[in-house]
Amino acid sequence: MTATPEQERPGRIMAREIREQPDVLRRLLGTGAERIQEVARQVAARSPRFVLLTARGTSDNAALYAKYLLEIRLGLPCGLASMSTTTAYGARPDLRDVLVITVSQSGGSPDLVASTKAAREAGAITLAVTNNPDSPLAAVSEHHIDIMARPEKALPATKTYTASLLALYLFVEGLRGADGSAVAAVLPDLAAELLTRQDEVRVLASRYRFAERMVITSRGYGYPTAKEAALKLMETSYIPALSYSGADLLHGPLAMVDNISPVIAVVTDGRGGVALQPVLDRLRGRGADLMVVGPEAQVARASAGFVLPTAGVAEEVQPVLEILPLQLLAYEVTIARGQDPDAPRALAKVTETR
Amino acid sequence: MTATPEQERPGRIMAREIREQPDVLRRLLGTGAERIQEVARQVAARSPRFVLLTARGTSDNAALYAKYLLEIRLGLPCGLASMSTTTAYGARPDLRDVLVITVSQSGGSPDLVASTKAAREAGAITLAVTNNPDSPLAAVSEHHIDIMARPEKALPATKTYTASLLALYLFVEGLRGADGSAVAAVLPDLAAELLTRQDEVRVLASRYRFAERMVITSRGYGYPTAKEAALKLMETSYIPALSYSGADLLHGPLAMVDNISPVIAVVTDGRGGVALQPVLDRLRGRGADLMVVGPEAQVARASAGFVLPTAGVAEEVQPVLEILPLQLLAYEVTIARGQDPDAPRALAKVTETR
Repeated sequence: MTATPEQERPGRIMAREIREQPDVLRRLLGTGAERIQEVARQVAARSPRFVLLTARGTSDNAALYAKYLLEIRLGLPCGLASMSTTTAYGARPDLRDVLVITVSQSGGSPDLVASTKAAREAGAITLAVTNNPDSPLAAVSEHHIDIMARPEKALPATKTYTASLLALYLFVEGLRGADGSAVAAVLPDLAAELLTRQDEVRVLASRYRFAERMVITSRGYGYPTAKEAALKLMETSYIPALSYSGADLLHGPLAMVDNISPVIAVVTDGRGGVALQPVLDRLRGRGADLMVVGPEAQVARASAGFVLPTAGVAEEVQPVLEILPLQLLAYEVTIARGQDPDAPRALAKVTETR
Repeated sequence: MTATPEQERPGRIMAREIREQPDVLRRLLGTGAERIQEVARQVAARSPRFVLLTARGTSDNAALYAKYLLEIRLGLPCGLASMSTTTAYGARPDLRDVLVITVSQSGGSPDLVASTKAAREAGAITLAVTNNPDSPLAAVSEHHIDIMARPEKALPATKTYTASLLALYLFVEGLRGADGSAVAAVLPDLAAELLTRQDEVRVLASRYRFAERMVITSRGYGYPTAKEAALKLMETSYIPALSYSGADLLHGPLAMVDNISPVIAVVTDGRGGVALQPVLDRLRGRGADLMVVGPEAQVARASAGFVLPTAGVAEEVQPVLEILPLQLLAYEVTIARGQDPDAPRALAKVTETR
């Protein structure tokens, strides 16, 4: 374990933005929640029958989280949009009664702006969720939710991810005529508490110093966390990290899991964790190196783990906390491998795909 | 290159099923097309407004292909179902006017049967696409399409994938009141021709003998091919093969692409290929080891490649051909690494996820 003071280590920007998250969550619950409720009321008045979510990269994982919320808590059928059908093939689907939610921290990707504009012209109710109310995406959307995370400078997105999750949670609760603030109120303090445990994560990171690949799995609400953790690890450390829902893992890629492919399982305390249980049992039966991020009882049965506080935390908001140790893990693994989390090769903050 | 006769090499079952594909396609076009048209007529009469696709593993990639077809050719908004919302969380979305298509070669996975049954109870029009008309999935679905591929014995699915693609293409064309048979008629002979070029693939496979990871990318109609190629490579050779749409690749994982991460690009001859062009330019600019499966002009500009015959082949049916050299590649890479493509560790043919 290194004794270098953090301000002298690489990855300062990412580290700072990771630590800002409790404040970002507090701000959103404090001054943001009411406006989100108002947007939700306006959208609910239009009675959408179907939801399409559009996003890329980290925001795509936030969109997937919203898909679970919308399907489970609202019973609204949902799809993740394949953007190229609009931007490359010019598809103009009939989008009456369809709510199109576009998630983008910058609000600047030209393809997202184009597909949102096309969706609005095709009759959709459009909602942009961004970190920039002055962005082109906010401008072309009928509705906008500001995630209020303040500028994100590090290339690997962290605080805009958890802010998007919380904003989407409050929005979906609002759509069903509820107020999610009370359930979410525990999150900022628990987040702050989790982020004090960076030394624990540093020890876990040493396991992956020489890993050539990793598999990350979960089920239900935890699945977007698994995907986001894999993306974070790849963006920063370049370790090929493959994420699978537990059920998909059994359909093929399990062949790849052996003692040289460590597995990280994100185990929610709730039905998602219960559904993942047979997969965990199978992995343990194969002698996989299994690290669990989840409740204490699950961590105790794994090779290693990080215990999440889940008492009093509703399953549907656990993803806001689950990702925190995994962001720290991506950061610490990258440092351990002698790389700089702030300077991934080839990444630009606003990706200009068209 | 080995001189061992094929019947003595491992992977005989997979090799045989790969070679059966031209006949499977011919059979489907010959005796299957009319029944698929009839199912399409019945479904069209119900005027679905949205489509949800449910599948796992290889069938999930076939479902993704159908999503592109439905969105581009029919303008029907589509989503891939997150099955656990139904099976683990008991979500009961309002599925009136929703067509739920479940794709499964065996028709036997309990979770697919359960989610299809739940969808039907929730008012959906249900369609199962399977290789077994006597399966439980066919029984619980209102409609059924038999892909007529005859029993598939190898664990890595090959012929049921291309048969599912063609069946779904004929179905979607039928939904829009057209007959896809004429456009698809070129496929069986071209497939047979492609499969005679196994020696070319064997040479390409030697590039990946020692690869520790691979990235496979495409855009539009070719994207399901990229995902299926990655799955096939992982199931057989255990190489961590990461698939990304070209646009997503620029949003993060590009950091992982350098001279030790070879890239395979699936380039369709059409709008998908055009949309992929900036990604190909960027990869070439970074000096990536780029192998292209696509038209001759694209292969000529890459480090290596496999030329697909695209003249006279509509972009939307090219995926049926694109996957063939990649199935052969998975087979040959596995043989080159001294493993048996017929015996992946840990895979069962019917995966009993619940």
